[in-house]
Amino acid sequence: MKFTVNQIAELIQGTVNGDGDQIISGFDKIEEGKKGSISFLANPKYESYLYETAATAVIVSNQLELKKPVQSALIRVNDPYIAFTILLQKYQEIMAVKPTGIQEPSYIDRSAKIGDSTFIGRFTNIESNVQIGNNTQIYDRVSIGKNVKIGSNCSIFPGVVIYSDCIIGNDVVIHANSVIGSDGFGHAPQADGTFKAIPQLGNVVIEDHVSIGSNTTIDRATMGSTIIRTGVKIDNLVQIAHNVEIGQHTAIAAQTGISGSTKVGENCLIAGQVGVAGHITIAPRTIVTGQSGVTKTVKVAGQTLGGTPASNNVDFLKRNALIRQLPEILEKFNQKNK
Amino acid sequence: MKFTVNQIAELIQGTVNGDGDQIISGFDKIEEGKKGSISFLANPKYESYLYETAATAVIVSNQLELKKPVQSALIRVNDPYIAFTILLQKYQEIMAVKPTGIQEPSYIDRSAKIGDSTFIGRFTNIESNVQIGNNTQIYDRVSIGKNVKIGSNCSIFPGVVIYSDCIIGNDVVIHANSVIGSDGFGHAPQADGTFKAIPQLGNVVIEDHVSIGSNTTIDRATMGSTIIRTGVKIDNLVQIAHNVEIGQHTAIAAQTGISGSTKVGENCLIAGQVGVAGHITIAPRTIVTGQSGVTKTVKVAGQTLGGTPASNNVDFLKRNALIRQLPEILEKFNQKNK
Amino acid sequence: MKFTVNQIAELIQGTVNGDGDQIISGFDKIEEGKKGSISFLANPKYESYLYETAATAVIVSNQLELKKPVQSALIRVNDPYIAFTILLQKYQEIMAVKPTGIQEPSYIDRSAKIGDSTFIGRFTNIESNVQIGNNTQIYDRVSIGKNVKIGSNCSIFPGVVIYSDCIIGNDVVIHANSVIGSDGFGHAPQADGTFKAIPQLGNVVIEDHVSIGSNTTIDRATMGSTIIRTGVKIDNLVQIAHNVEIGQHTAIAAQTGISGSTKVGENCLIAGQVGVAGHITIAPRTIVTGQSGVTKTVKVAGQTLGGTPASNNVDFLKRNALIRQLPEILEKFNQKNK
Repeated sequence: MKFTVNQIAELIQGTVNGDGDQIISGFDKIEEGKKGSISFLANPKYESYLYETAATAVIVSNQLELKKPVQSALIRVNDPYIAFTILLQKYQEIMAVKPTGIQEPSYIDRSAKIGDSTFIGRFTNIESNVQIGNNTQIYDRVSIGKNVKIGSNCSIFPGVVIYSDCIIGNDVVIHANSVIGSDGFGHAPQADGTFKAIPQLGNVVIEDHVSIGSNTTIDRATMGSTIIRTGVKIDNLVQIAHNVEIGQHTAIAAQTGISGSTKVGENCLIAGQVGVAGHITIAPRTIVTGQSGVTKTVKVAGQTLGGTPASNNVDFLKRNALIRQLPEILEKFNQKNK
Repeated sequence: MKFTVNQIAELIQGTVNGDGDQIISGFDKIEEGKKGSISFLANPKYESYLYETAATAVIVSNQLELKKPVQSALIRVNDPYIAFTILLQKYQEIMAVKPTGIQEPSYIDRSAKIGDSTFIGRFTNIESNVQIGNNTQIYDRVSIGKNVKIGSNCSIFPGVVIYSDCIIGNDVVIHANSVIGSDGFGHAPQADGTFKAIPQLGNVVIEDHVSIGSNTTIDRATMGSTIIRTGVKIDNLVQIAHNVEIGQHTAIAAQTGISGSTKVGENCLIAGQVGVAGHITIAPRTIVTGQSGVTKTVKVAGQTLGGTPASNNVDFLKRNALIRQLPEILEKFNQKNK
Repeated sequence: MKFTVNQIAELIQGTVNGDGDQIISGFDKIEEGKKGSISFLANPKYESYLYETAATAVIVSNQLELKKPVQSALIRVNDPYIAFTILLQKYQEIMAVKPTGIQEPSYIDRSAKIGDSTFIGRFTNIESNVQIGNNTQIYDRVSIGKNVKIGSNCSIFPGVVIYSDCIIGNDVVIHANSVIGSDGFGHAPQADGTFKAIPQLGNVVIEDHVSIGSNTTIDRATMGSTIIRTGVKIDNLVQIAHNVEIGQHTAIAAQTGISGSTKVGENCLIAGQVGVAGHITIAPRTIVTGQSGVTKTVKVAGQTLGGTPASNNVDFLKRNALIRQLPEILEKFNQKNK
């Protein structure tokens, strides 16, 4: 990439303070900014870096009031984070030439239907009656079971396993070594203390624009479908149990687990290492803070929850503050009651 | 499948209320029941669905007293959940034709001994001196190290890695991308702040009828064996550290971790995201609730534990209730002591 | 291995009590010691086994005072654990003949540069411009993306995926099915409630002597590098998010997650199932106990932290003790204030 500061400003609809004719040839974090690179400042926490960075240009907020002189040219926009994201995407579109073709050795069952401009990597195994849409990349060492349908413009990275009968929409990304459609954890306890496996006859349905991280597991339903709705973003090492439904545009951070048959509403933000109990419903736009344990149905939309068992996060933080004062409070109490 | 309601009732030893001659051709969850399908009602929470479902038949408890009229034929049994499970299993037995044969390309070392009616999938690598019993399926893209023994009637799904010298019993299921026998996390701290790796010379022994989910890790012992006893059921993303022993018919839900050298008793139920400290013993029939942290040996069998550090769950819940009342209690206290 | 007790004592610079001419042919845990084996006693908790073991020799501390007679020959050393580790390593050096050569079928792009005495396993895929140093083993079914550099004396186990542009130092071990360099979890929320993926253009840099467990995920940086410094030891199922830096000789136990852009200092010990928030800094030599949640920057080095949100562990344990006494304290309070 070789653009002037002015050209980039035009691209992201910003206004330039400083020398707009300078050349930009790369991206850097603001604290690591070098001559020739562009960076951005979104989090006020990092403002001090703005006055020290050697970056040729920095994207900043229209609202920002400078406290010291800066070396860099500034490009002012409404939202520096979104503007920078757009810039990265334009860059990636120019740079990313997606592979096509079929590498050998690989196996594609003759009953499988593979779209145009697809890529199938080496050591990948595609079973009978699989359907794959156009412009989809299935990288090396992927296993795709019988009757699986995958849409267009998907990227399935190495080591992914998709069990039979699962359905994947368009524009879906699944990162390395994730597993879609393995058996739900269903074992009926018997009178003698042993378990009997409950056949898991359902599947997983992943809708469009879903992104899934690495080493994540999404189990097939006992009956019916485990459903990941449009636009859901799932991080690494996440567990989605059988018959769960995740509402559209909900984001789930790493190492979180959603137990069986639970329905998470749309536009929720679930932080890392959260546990959600089975057979409950989470209202739309719920925010769950890290490591919380949600044990009951959440009926009111838009709340922020914290703690285990999770409650309103403000109450949770207040209680935490009180608990920290407990030693002092009790000493006072004991003195009064001597 | 095409059976009458009466035929199914006979199979699961139930009695029919309603038209027993209707034809059943599939399974559905009760809330999604369609004409021609059979469902079940085990959890009283879902009783309202019984009066709305379009399922042709529903398996219910002998004890159930109807509160409204129902459309469906009812099959009454002692335990609807177990009855439905039996029905699903019969169905699966009829439907599931397990593959046999060896797909190419795959590698089986000439010193390996492979039983009858086995299946070896493509891109699978089987090292020297491996032994595999009869009727076992090793699916595609599996790695099996030297000297590994696998029993009969096992299913090893794509991407599984079994390190050298591990021993797997009969009727064992291991789901995709799980790792059996990688090195235990043993690093001896040195005086200069660095670590020295402790060689992990043991193995993993998995007994009969064990089921393991996806992306789970079971480490080999430093010396001796990490042991998973008969009938243990392990979910996805579970960590079993070196030299752990899990007692027979214990179930461990997703994302739980058991630290090194700990012995978990038989018939325990360990929920999701639980952490168990190293070098302790958990008594038989212990139940540990989700996200709890068990830090000390549990001597008394049959307790239910909760919280971190885990204690009797009733006490834990009581304390939680008290903590929620703290703000109020303290206000009262402050008023009294002004 | 066939050595006398005296020969082993010389190797680990210990002194023998008992018959030093006996032959040792294997290792055992002290509680499983058999005739012909050597064991060790480091943890005083297990001292009772010393008086019962059938092991021919046991490595013990110079300080140990016997409370009963023992059957075994004793080898006394300063630190039995380190001495035993050294013994195991010598044994492993003698026993471990590392494979070399290239197994077929595998793919090595013609632009890749592969060092001397390397091993490339079957069904492994090595993309363009990859560089691999001498004496490195890449086992079967590994995926190595474009431009990846791997140093000398590394072991990369089956199923590992290393995305393009990542850099791995010398003497690095990566266990099965771990993923290095998949996209960071970066999705910019849009005004309409959807997300836009933020291109992840950076890489992962892993320095020398790092060890990584199974099914662990280390995400590539948005820009710049996610960095794992020299000597870091990471267990199974650990999540390291984008732009994280882990300081040298820090150890991280299983199922812990470090959120984006956080810097963990050197020589820290982070136990299992810990969560560390994003954009914070952890001072050197910090110890974090299991399941804790570190939510803020830790400035003072050498502290032990516990709880969520994490605080000084002694305070955390005191508060826990107080919480356990709450029911009693409140009853007393209510009586006084009737």
